[in-house]
Amino acid sequence: MLSFLSDYTNGAHPEVLQRLYDTNAQTLPGYGVDLLCAAAADKIVRACQKAEAQVYFLAGGTQTNQVVIAAHLRSYEGVIAAASGHINAHEAGAIEYSGHKVLALPHHDGRLDADEVRAYLQAFYADGSYDHMVFPGMVYISQPTEYGTLYSKAQLQALHTVCREYHIPLFVDGARLAYALTAPDNDVSLPELAALCDVFYIGGTKVGALCGEAVVFPHGNMPKRFNTIVKQHGAMLAKGRLLGAQFDALFTDDLYFRIGRHVMEMAMRLKTLFAEKGYRFYLDSPTNQQFVVLDNDTLARLQSQVAFTVWEPFDEAHTVVRFVTGWTTTQEELDALAALL
Amino acid sequence: MLSFLSDYTNGAHPEVLQRLYDTNAQTLPGYGVDLLCAAAADKIVRACQKAEAQVYFLAGGTQTNQVVIAAHLRSYEGVIAAASGHINAHEAGAIEYSGHKVLALPHHDGRLDADEVRAYLQAFYADGSYDHMVFPGMVYISQPTEYGTLYSKAQLQALHTVCREYHIPLFVDGARLAYALTAPDNDVSLPELAALCDVFYIGGTKVGALCGEAVVFPHGNMPKRFNTIVKQHGAMLAKGRLLGAQFDALFTDDLYFRIGRHVMEMAMRLKTLFAEKGYRFYLDSPTNQQFVVLDNDTLARLQSQVAFTVWEPFDEAHTVVRFVTGWTTTQEELDALAALL
Amino acid sequence: MLSFLSDYTNGAHPEVLQRLYDTNAQTLPGYGVDLLCAAAADKIVRACQKAEAQVYFLAGGTQTNQVVIAAHLRSYEGVIAAASGHINAHEAGAIEYSGHKVLALPHHDGRLDADEVRAYLQAFYADGSYDHMVFPGMVYISQPTEYGTLYSKAQLQALHTVCREYHIPLFVDGARLAYALTAPDNDVSLPELAALCDVFYIGGTKVGALCGEAVVFPHGNMPKRFNTIVKQHGAMLAKGRLLGAQFDALFTDDLYFRIGRHVMEMAMRLKTLFAEKGYRFYLDSPTNQQFVVLDNDTLARLQSQVAFTVWEPFDEAHTVVRFVTGWTTTQEELDALAALL
Amino acid sequence: MLSFLSDYTNGAHPEVLQRLYDTNAQTLPGYGVDLLCAAAADKIVRACQKAEAQVYFLAGGTQTNQVVIAAHLRSYEGVIAAASGHINAHEAGAIEYSGHKVLALPHHDGRLDADEVRAYLQAFYADGSYDHMVFPGMVYISQPTEYGTLYSKAQLQALHTVCREYHIPLFVDGARLAYALTAPDNDVSLPELAALCDVFYIGGTKVGALCGEAVVFPHGNMPKRFNTIVKQHGAMLAKGRLLGAQFDALFTDDLYFRIGRHVMEMAMRLKTLFAEKGYRFYLDSPTNQQFVVLDNDTLARLQSQVAFTVWEPFDEAHTVVRFVTGWTTTQEELDALAALL
Repeated sequence: MLSFLSDYTNGAHPEVLQRLYDTNAQTLPGYGVDLLCAAAADKIVRACQKAEAQVYFLAGGTQTNQVVIAAHLRSYEGVIAAASGHINAHEAGAIEYSGHKVLALPHHDGRLDADEVRAYLQAFYADGSYDHMVFPGMVYISQPTEYGTLYSKAQLQALHTVCREYHIPLFVDGARLAYALTAPDNDVSLPELAALCDVFYIGGTKVGALCGEAVVFPHGNMPKRFNTIVKQHGAMLAKGRLLGAQFDALFTDDLYFRIGRHVMEMAMRLKTLFAEKGYRFYLDSPTNQQFVVLDNDTLARLQSQVAFTVWEPFDEAHTVVRFVTGWTTTQEELDALAALL
Repeated sequence: MLSFLSDYTNGAHPEVLQRLYDTNAQTLPGYGVDLLCAAAADKIVRACQKAEAQVYFLAGGTQTNQVVIAAHLRSYEGVIAAASGHINAHEAGAIEYSGHKVLALPHHDGRLDADEVRAYLQAFYADGSYDHMVFPGMVYISQPTEYGTLYSKAQLQALHTVCREYHIPLFVDGARLAYALTAPDNDVSLPELAALCDVFYIGGTKVGALCGEAVVFPHGNMPKRFNTIVKQHGAMLAKGRLLGAQFDALFTDDLYFRIGRHVMEMAMRLKTLFAEKGYRFYLDSPTNQQFVVLDNDTLARLQSQVAFTVWEPFDEAHTVVRFVTGWTTTQEELDALAALL
Repeated sequence: MLSFLSDYTNGAHPEVLQRLYDTNAQTLPGYGVDLLCAAAADKIVRACQKAEAQVYFLAGGTQTNQVVIAAHLRSYEGVIAAASGHINAHEAGAIEYSGHKVLALPHHDGRLDADEVRAYLQAFYADGSYDHMVFPGMVYISQPTEYGTLYSKAQLQALHTVCREYHIPLFVDGARLAYALTAPDNDVSLPELAALCDVFYIGGTKVGALCGEAVVFPHGNMPKRFNTIVKQHGAMLAKGRLLGAQFDALFTDDLYFRIGRHVMEMAMRLKTLFAEKGYRFYLDSPTNQQFVVLDNDTLARLQSQVAFTVWEPFDEAHTVVRFVTGWTTTQEELDALAALL
Repeated sequence: MLSFLSDYTNGAHPEVLQRLYDTNAQTLPGYGVDLLCAAAADKIVRACQKAEAQVYFLAGGTQTNQVVIAAHLRSYEGVIAAASGHINAHEAGAIEYSGHKVLALPHHDGRLDADEVRAYLQAFYADGSYDHMVFPGMVYISQPTEYGTLYSKAQLQALHTVCREYHIPLFVDGARLAYALTAPDNDVSLPELAALCDVFYIGGTKVGALCGEAVVFPHGNMPKRFNTIVKQHGAMLAKGRLLGAQFDALFTDDLYFRIGRHVMEMAMRLKTLFAEKGYRFYLDSPTNQQFVVLDNDTLARLQSQVAFTVWEPFDEAHTVVRFVTGWTTTQEELDALAALL
């Protein structure tokens, strides 16, 4: 069936799979200290244009969020996030399971507002009983957000500034970072992102890998004993090569960005299709997740012909749905979709 | 200085202290299995009119919330609470520290709305990806609420019903329960409360004890190994007698209710004082916490003459403050306050 | 360099890699509910000869131990393990991180003794203050053990019996299960193992996969909400197909056992090599991990020519080392090693 | 019945109770920032002869151990303790519940041996895979130990030295500290103890208080946000005055030491009684816990006439029991016991 379900419903990009094949016969030490991981890390460091950056590979997004946040927070600290943030809404309480409160603020099409973050922090420290409350110890955002929207450079800079003012790290979940970096509307380059946050990750799972997220500590600021923290979370792969080889491929010959550009081209065409047919968008997403409001009859009709995600009810008669393009999306699929709309 | 700071700023009620004195020479086993705890529990069971009820004494409110909630939830479950609920706002993340998310819903003058709880539960189970989310495993409310308001019997019944529909327990934080039970507007008796919830506690610390909260499992439903869970939280006193003796006093000769009635009489007079002087109330509280909106000049003036709590900013020029009556509050103190208003 | 470092230093077995390649173009839903996972699970269920068995795929061993143990234990329970057990010694406190004590008993060449487990349980419940102690809630063993040794069917039956007596589950870590099942000395078949324990896993990472462990609940006894527990631990892969495809290959045409037999043939030859040259074994291991005591001069000499693991000091002048065979080990490599000994 | 069950089976020392009575009418702020807590802390600081010392009052021993250890350790760290240590054996896994492994070493009549601690630390850092293990982050000892024995100044100095070498704090559980400080054999004064460790507590519960332990950070080294950590553990009493008043009494007119001296005098006489009657001691305890080996007939006879604790089986025919003196123990009780032996 025609599918716009997600960007993780297909296998590996051929170049990624080929790298696994080509390196398969090598004998390599375990636990991520192999040459493939080193080579991949090196390429990522160069792409970030931060010689002091450190890179650590993990297998999936929720795992990465849990490990990175736990590694940064003291027990009395929580993490500020948009209410729509993945860690607040769709990770089964992984952050709380590791002992930390998600301090949810209102979202604006998926984004945190820097002024609201500052107001929250000001109010916190102005409250006479703040030592009976959860200290805000980190700010978590996603680029692109869970609604496909982007932080502009100015917005990111503003968050960076407020985090500096309060001495708390800014963490960017980049599970779909490729689609931010290659979006037509985007004005934040990878080196700029690296400069403006304290830790972020470059998502592989949703960008042509079988699994894998590359955590970047841009300022050489990997937390002490991070390796042991990863092990303690059950997050260390014995064959770290699986992650190293894939990211080595993704950062060879610009593959990560080539995938990004293709997916974004397909996404913009898909968006245009819906727009031209007069569909209503839930919000204006500039990346590869498009949220459309369907009346429930249309919903039922389309569900029988094409796979996509039912996001949430809109009202009694309408539903928000999500269409996503991925590295395998083709013009033929878009044409087939167009015929159904 | 004249003080309406809180109901825990004075020592023990004389009858409570006397009981500690009278029982001091007894040799009693430790860890809560002594005769004083048994006698106190027996009196509470009778006051609740539930022969099958079980009682367990703990030292403080946050501790009780943490232990009771952790004892009921499985790891994948969280607890629904009003955003203003004590566990969400003022317990330094104690619930999250034990691994569970507080699922905060909007509050209505401190209260959860049963229909909104039902809507939340319906939406949860209607969401196709609910197994990636935190399961709602309990409903937590406070009677009276953190804003001094009360659940009516109808409201409590409605919450009871929705909890039954979804097979999740209803937990009532009664840190100030005496002031609910004796409030003029109250229509929920102690036996009715016991019948309508799954676990609740009768606060002692704020009702004339030095410390202590009596957890009641009205239906003989104490969680398995509750004693060990308490120990594991560091919440078991070696000299459990300290709690038993105090609650034995509080439930002798109706003391708990006598304290409640005195405090409420003082509270209603205090409320009248503010009303007569034309002060604006933040909300209409029927119990011993009164929330008043002061302009900031008045705030500054009063702060130099009487102790009370600055609650939160109201707007640029006004502040919400809290005045509380306790078992030591006298008519003379109210007269002195009246002279200042 | 010649390497007997471990069984996870090479890539995927060709048939495993081929399956990834062959299935790469399929569009499949995420999170482990795809056809490849279903097919693999089905094959494993049949191999276990337990129609009611359930299978769940996870990425790595420490992760699996943490998730499975946490899913079974109540907060007041710990897990009995040999002091040498992986969860006690080499998982960076992953079990304690999830809140549970490892109740370590002495090991006998890596094995727990059923009589000692029973004595521990008897003493626990005979202790008047057991409710101040950690309840034993599970027994964890590894087959083969961390020292390469095996539980015989009689030993496994004895552990099964004591676990039944005390109503606690028996969990078998099978990270290297293939090498138990195909060891010449082994008398426990896969169906017998499945019948004698409550949950176990079939290790993939060390048996030709890139990653992956197949957790088996032989009696249809998967814990409630296991999927959410997995998600909460950050242990759920978006592309569950990665695990499904690999295990589908491993359980096609007997590959899991073919790998096992090859590795064990190499291991027995390696053991013979050391024996013939007069080397001293630390213990008599019947599987693919061989522990040899080297004098420190020989250690230094060999380390420059062949890769292996320094296990632990033996005495001032000797060291315990480990040699491991894997699916890539060849007769040529053994010949080369022989020339060095 | 005649009782040597424990030192926490009686109420408060009259001077402690009197202080509660005398201060009861004072209006004091909550949460431990009151004048009584300040006065008590000041007296303790002076008794420790460390002007920079900080004092924090908590309610009970397990709570104190859990909070103090959690406040010092990073997530990847565990705490070294004797296998017989209270945190390892009798706190229901409170340390593991807060995420940390207890790294149990053999005990010597309840004591850790400094050389064995050093050997453990050396072996840890010499192990090539130590980053897959739990980092030793603290050393926990009890003075007196759980077997009533004492660390000499030389032994304490040796532990202090090894902790300094490895930059980990030394924590002393002083639940019965009074009985160490006043034991005839003791050579470690309170100021010396304060100088030789990083954090310790002065037990009140077992020394005449109703509850309460005074945590001392001798070097002004209270962990950041300790107050919030306490709150998060549910360990903060609203009426902190309950702890302040009691410790103010205990450190007025030398009461803590007067209680200690009386209890120790009774203990030494009790020890002499058993010795003169030819009873066998399990070990030679110099403090108020005396461990005697009874044949099981004698055990049965004595149990019907006097209360004491059955500690553990000794062999088939004998049992280890514990007799404890407390602040209420009298010569008349010893005479009555003598008549029974």
